[in-house]
Amino acid sequence: MSVVYDKVALIGLGLIAGSISLAAREAGVAGRISGTSRSAKTRAAARDIGLVDEVADNAAGAVRGADLVILCVPVGAMGRAMAEIAPHLKPGAVVTDVGSVKQEVIAQVTPHLPDHVHFIPGHPLAGTEHSGPLSGFAELFQNRWWLLTPLPDCDPGELSRLRRFIRALGANIEDMDPAHHDLVLAVTSHTPHLIAYTMVGVADHLKRVTESEIIKYSAAGFRDFTRIAASDPTMWRDVFLTNKDAVLDILGRFTEELFVLQRAIRMGDGDQLHDYFTRTRAIRRGIIEAGQDTSAPDFGRSVKPTPPRSE
Amino acid sequence: MSVVYDKVALIGLGLIAGSISLAAREAGVAGRISGTSRSAKTRAAARDIGLVDEVADNAAGAVRGADLVILCVPVGAMGRAMAEIAPHLKPGAVVTDVGSVKQEVIAQVTPHLPDHVHFIPGHPLAGTEHSGPLSGFAELFQNRWWLLTPLPDCDPGELSRLRRFIRALGANIEDMDPAHHDLVLAVTSHTPHLIAYTMVGVADHLKRVTESEIIKYSAAGFRDFTRIAASDPTMWRDVFLTNKDAVLDILGRFTEELFVLQRAIRMGDGDQLHDYFTRTRAIRRGIIEAGQDTSAPDFGRSVKPTPPRSE
Repeated sequence: MSVVYDKVALIGLGLIAGSISLAAREAGVAGRISGTSRSAKTRAAARDIGLVDEVADNAAGAVRGADLVILCVPVGAMGRAMAEIAPHLKPGAVVTDVGSVKQEVIAQVTPHLPDHVHFIPGHPLAGTEHSGPLSGFAELFQNRWWLLTPLPDCDPGELSRLRRFIRALGANIEDMDPAHHDLVLAVTSHTPHLIAYTMVGVADHLKRVTESEIIKYSAAGFRDFTRIAASDPTMWRDVFLTNKDAVLDILGRFTEELFVLQRAIRMGDGDQLHDYFTRTRAIRRGIIEAGQDTSAPDFGRSVKPTPPRSE
Repeated sequence: MSVVYDKVALIGLGLIAGSISLAAREAGVAGRISGTSRSAKTRAAARDIGLVDEVADNAAGAVRGADLVILCVPVGAMGRAMAEIAPHLKPGAVVTDVGSVKQEVIAQVTPHLPDHVHFIPGHPLAGTEHSGPLSGFAELFQNRWWLLTPLPDCDPGELSRLRRFIRALGANIEDMDPAHHDLVLAVTSHTPHLIAYTMVGVADHLKRVTESEIIKYSAAGFRDFTRIAASDPTMWRDVFLTNKDAVLDILGRFTEELFVLQRAIRMGDGDQLHDYFTRTRAIRRGIIEAGQDTSAPDFGRSVKPTPPRSE
């Protein structure tokens, strides 16, 4: 693969930024990669393991001369990051982001955007419950979706160049309208996360069941929830605050539906429960056929293709 | 390992029964294993792959001469299974079960129990989202918990013999009071399953988001939910109908807690969300330390130690 951007700058050095750097290095699509973080500890850790070619002390230093700048900070920090880098951007540079919410990021970023810079919002649907500069790995994006929500005035040449870079990281790309993106993600990711957090909180509060019992007897259901609920608190706080309308809409539907099943349990309506549970199996089959998961049974002690660098 | 029971009979030939047979055969703890199912198709499939030494056409035939009988049918069918086998049980035989609810199984089974037979209720905390005679595998119980809820008049000699058998399958054993068992499982397994079913149902009903979008963009959160929601509908219907009180109790707490977080989102209270999400991380760490899961990041394409025989 040949170099797509001579210099790529990563603002933020967490799981996604680290994985981008490692994957881009493997693919040979970045001439050189700089990065920065507001946390001195994170910068030092990134330097220690050589996560990027150059760890800059601040955003201005990182973006100097960069052809592609990727904002890899929590959604709530995107506006501030953009304001910081704006005066230092190279004319003609492309800025993209990896935020899980798109309308809010666009609203935060565009006011700070210099005229001579292209902004193409994006969102890789990939992650693990780990975070920080040591959690990245090159295979994170392999066969995952990377959604782009280009704005109406997007430069077609720059869009196709960014796509070439992203595809080289292993991801499949699809374009989407920002509002539709936020709704789809509220259903497939944001609300499930909130529910998992809630269920883990309920277990934690229950005095009659000890924490040791919950931990020991975390059968498959709860174990998966705790994995989801271990995700980065700052990132998720920002997701819920910035995709509020879609999440509240889906939560309302969820509660309604839950009450229907709760009533079926209370009334002893086995047929209704059985019908419902049978229908939900079909979606799962679709996901397996779409290649987003395997049909191998998960019994909690998976051997992973690539271990994280450390925890 | 030496033979613990000369003949073991399995009533039901699904995931759990199949895994018991394969694990007991590997461990050499059963002289011979018979099994039966009410479904002719299941019996034929079990015969085809030699899942047990002898597939009997009915429960009476399967339990004839058996020293240990394991009821591996859905919780709602335990009473009927016990009534069927009762007249054919060998004097001194031990009957156990693998039901996910214990108070209801005890209430269903004990009225049919002959005086000369020992009943020791049990529940292996192991499973996958697959079901049926082809889904079993010998390693299912390795390092998993197998809870026993012995009744007050339980014969200590027979209890320790059953423990020897279960340990040989790879499981760790703990005793628990039946009511406490049902509460603990309502928190760690039953309610999480209902919630996963509900969320998958909400996604299915949402007209503005297509099924193909849900399937394609099932980021980590939703993918785990669909896996849980793909579990056997009959088994889960029975769980909710028979552990009604504990599940409704936990569901009530869950909804309360969800409303608190929902309100925090609506009011924009980021601190409350961040605090909550930070606390839930601790439980996850406990589960990893307790050895019930690994800290390797799960990004959805796990390589499994043992593939299922087929799907």
